[in-house]
Amino acid sequence: MDRIPILKMGQFLLVTIQVDLYDRLALELESDLVKMVSKTGAKGILIDISAVSIVDSFMGRIIGNIGVMSKLLDAETVVVGMQPAVAITLVELGLPLQGVYTALNVERGMDLLRSKVQLTEEDETDPTNDNEDYLAE
Amino acid sequence: MDRIPILKMGQFLLVTIQVDLYDRLALELESDLVKMVSKTGAKGILIDISAVSIVDSFMGRIIGNIGVMSKLLDAETVVVGMQPAVAITLVELGLPLQGVYTALNVERGMDLLRSKVQLTEEDETDPTNDNEDYLAE
Repeated sequence: MDRIPILKMGQFLLVTIQVDLYDRLALELESDLVKMVSKTGAKGILIDISAVSIVDSFMGRIIGNIGVMSKLLDAETVVVGMQPAVAITLVELGLPLQGVYTALNVERGMDLLRSKVQLTEEDETDPTNDNEDYLAE
Repeated sequence: MDRIPILKMGQFLLVTIQVDLYDRLALELESDLVKMVSKTGAKGILIDISAVSIVDSFMGRIIGNIGVMSKLLDAETVVVGMQPAVAITLVELGLPLQGVYTALNVERGMDLLRSKVQLTEEDETDPTNDNEDYLAE
């Protein structure tokens, strides 16, 4: 595969990671995502890692980098669908995924992103903003 | 990779095909999708094939099957993100992708699905139903 596709959904970008993020692919995803945020003016990135069963420090760092870079361009990053084993590995490796938020699944991640965007843009009038009753904040 | 992840987004399911759909994986995707439609009561399936650069008759048949099976469970299927070369190949192979709709990208595909669902369920009151101002029907 050449590149991981980035789907634009409204003001958010959605990426599903289905393959091992080896070096070139991960760095390309990083730069593609940042370029796409800049091009589309997206306010948030949703990264689904439900198909990822093995995580290492490189992948943890790449995801963290994406979070920090996007934040510089005023977009929030939410990682969703983490398998329990991956959460255990991340903690045991001492990789806290700094700079990114996490949510259980895509729907909750979307809700989280919408709430983050609303917090920063109180004039938001996006009618897609529903199902926020179970947000913790 | 074990399986292609299926993301639930509201009343629709989203699948991004990033790898070659060899036999087992394609058949598993087919059965996973149909089970998921049955389990979640999803009204539509969105299949993004923007990362697919080569298509063969097997893959064309699998996508067609998914469309017909989902239709039996009252869900519409929309294929989005087709590369121009893939469209050319499909026509040259004589594979018309029967039973599925197509759209240029995920956003237009979502709009198409929403309009299809609305046509069949006029009592729809889903608040996520936005951005319909440029729908053709």
